[in-house]
Amino acid sequence: MAKLRGNAVVAQSGGPTAVINASACGVIQEALKHEEIENVYGAQNGIVGILNGDLFDVRKENPAVVEGLKYTPGAALGSVRYKVKTREDYERIFEALKKHNIRYFFYNGGNDSMDTADKVNKLAVEKGYEMRCIGVPKTVDNDLPFTDHCPGYASAAKYLATTVAESWIDQRDLPSTKILIVEAMGRHAGWLAAAGALAKRADDDGPHLVYLPEVVFDTNQFVKDVQNIYKAVDRVLIVVSEGIHTADGTLLGESGARDAFGHAQLGGCAQVLKDILDKEVGAKSRYIIPASAQRAAAHVASLTDINEAWLVGKKAVEYAVEGISGVMVTLEREPGNGYRITTGKANLSEVANVEKKVPLEWINAEGNNVTADFINYARPLLEGEPPLRYEGGIPVFSRLAKHFIVK
Amino acid sequence: MAKLRGNAVVAQSGGPTAVINASACGVIQEALKHEEIENVYGAQNGIVGILNGDLFDVRKENPAVVEGLKYTPGAALGSVRYKVKTREDYERIFEALKKHNIRYFFYNGGNDSMDTADKVNKLAVEKGYEMRCIGVPKTVDNDLPFTDHCPGYASAAKYLATTVAESWIDQRDLPSTKILIVEAMGRHAGWLAAAGALAKRADDDGPHLVYLPEVVFDTNQFVKDVQNIYKAVDRVLIVVSEGIHTADGTLLGESGARDAFGHAQLGGCAQVLKDILDKEVGAKSRYIIPASAQRAAAHVASLTDINEAWLVGKKAVEYAVEGISGVMVTLEREPGNGYRITTGKANLSEVANVEKKVPLEWINAEGNNVTADFINYARPLLEGEPPLRYEGGIPVFSRLAKHFIVK
Repeated sequence: MAKLRGNAVVAQSGGPTAVINASACGVIQEALKHEEIENVYGAQNGIVGILNGDLFDVRKENPAVVEGLKYTPGAALGSVRYKVKTREDYERIFEALKKHNIRYFFYNGGNDSMDTADKVNKLAVEKGYEMRCIGVPKTVDNDLPFTDHCPGYASAAKYLATTVAESWIDQRDLPSTKILIVEAMGRHAGWLAAAGALAKRADDDGPHLVYLPEVVFDTNQFVKDVQNIYKAVDRVLIVVSEGIHTADGTLLGESGARDAFGHAQLGGCAQVLKDILDKEVGAKSRYIIPASAQRAAAHVASLTDINEAWLVGKKAVEYAVEGISGVMVTLEREPGNGYRITTGKANLSEVANVEKKVPLEWINAEGNNVTADFINYARPLLEGEPPLRYEGGIPVFSRLAKHFIVK
Repeated sequence: MAKLRGNAVVAQSGGPTAVINASACGVIQEALKHEEIENVYGAQNGIVGILNGDLFDVRKENPAVVEGLKYTPGAALGSVRYKVKTREDYERIFEALKKHNIRYFFYNGGNDSMDTADKVNKLAVEKGYEMRCIGVPKTVDNDLPFTDHCPGYASAAKYLATTVAESWIDQRDLPSTKILIVEAMGRHAGWLAAAGALAKRADDDGPHLVYLPEVVFDTNQFVKDVQNIYKAVDRVLIVVSEGIHTADGTLLGESGARDAFGHAQLGGCAQVLKDILDKEVGAKSRYIIPASAQRAAAHVASLTDINEAWLVGKKAVEYAVEGISGVMVTLEREPGNGYRITTGKANLSEVANVEKKVPLEWINAEGNNVTADFINYARPLLEGEPPLRYEGGIPVFSRLAKHFIVK
């Protein structure tokens, strides 16, 4: 097969993760190795940067800064939340790519981004414009299908499990806060809240209760669950997904409180649960809402996650230069003992807009915890600590210089 | 001077810190070196353990576990919130100490604990019972007088600064959340919220606004501050102390919201500020409430803090065997360039119940940030990372076996 000569663009989309930049690093470092890839561009703010021609020349970046992206949170290229809707939008994206002779398009994101990459790929085929579109998976929500897990998830999980483990010891050792609620991210899938269970190592460790959006949240049962544990061990540590909802689909976080003006508060579920427990149990309670810190916690990222995020970026380029297009790179777990990962691929059209939730068989019968199968699935993902450099007491992060091309 | 023979007890009090156990380690390791100290006891849950005779024999602990306390959050001996009030209470504490032939009393805590240690010391003098009472400083609030800073503060500050630095990059790189509020602990003193300012390294880094309880919080001015920065740079990162209050002393966190039953919500100030900004500025906003995770974050503790916490524990024993009593160990910063610390002592009676707040000259004229003097004060405290051991993706912490003595 003749080599496809032309330019490459790498773009990031959606919520950052602690390792999305490790994927960008993998794409960039691999792309620079292939002579048929002429220019390598970063898109400022994802698809919007492509539309506006806000592209910067990655070759002009300091290689040490690019290497440092492995350990840098946020979305160093610039991310965006932009739902591409109309045929006209896709036409404009396609024209923008064509204008810059983009022949390699690497889109790093979650469900929506895979949908975008799929449609751009199909349009290029339709127009007879040879281009390789590869999706690079990314999401702390861990909800992409066809991949064992998603880069970004493990680092957020490690941060959350570490926070829960430390907070449990704090709660255990001081007879003051009897009930502690940790609110985890994840509107539709409970993967992150489930990771809180990884904090438990000894039999008497918290967390005691873990609630996921995969099952209906029953407030009465919740109060009973808490009362039982409180009576038994005088402390209750609860990890709850922000997405928990009642039978009719109402989010707990939108069900209860009103502000001084009578407006419904969308402040998450922790406060609502605290109000319920203060009334029904009457023990001192407190909550932790890490919010976006979960996806930004590069200081306690998983080295496994960093390495895999880098790998799927590198693989995306390898697939593209092999002539493959219209796929997302996946992570496949080898069967048998020990944890070994290889990469694979899934068709973008099949990935797009499918949400993978925590399997119901990994949730206990009571709907208030995960099973050992989940622990066995998730534990290896958290292994390894990154070689961070600190300055003035906080980690040093990379920042790209961004030499923009003339529009 | 004749050596004072007898037993020692070490006790912890109040909210844990990431390094309170490093102080316990320092006390224990030093106490075991002195032959005149016969038994070394840990008190289960501070002064309550002393009252109840819940003492465990520290000599029976594995030395490796004791060494591991340096890197373990929580309060490994068991802490307590117990305000000793009456003369009768002190009499009972004194009798309990005397009963176990305690001649060395090491009390690790904040303001209240220093008051307790002071009164116990005075009672022993009054009764003609020779005992050495030494206070070991501890508080994430950093509000003890006569010491340059308090063990525990720097680790919480490092965690907060790291969280703010990471969250800023996350916020900067995705045009979605325009306003981010980070709520820091500290009811009366703003030291922890101020530490959020340490996240700022480049001119265009957040945080942009830092509000401390040392100055009156003016809601109208706050809205203007936020609007100005939002207009200028399209993002606003705000660090706010949970203790901010209006001119009449009302906590912001208690001012606004009501729950579905019409009860005032005491959910902290972040939600109240978000409600105000949603109404007045109308940009997408979000908050992070790390709560007790701030004081438990051993995984990102400051090695300087760990070493100093250990040192004040060790020094407490050295002072006691020298014949000193009725003092708290202090940290003194050497004048001149570079950061060098020596230990000193302050009379417990002068320490007790004095709160050291952030000096007003370290707060800018607008009352919405700290000055370079604060940064210069705090930055060196965060230096150094602990040699943590991880297992299954989360840090390994020490747990004492606790062989209790027969009552």
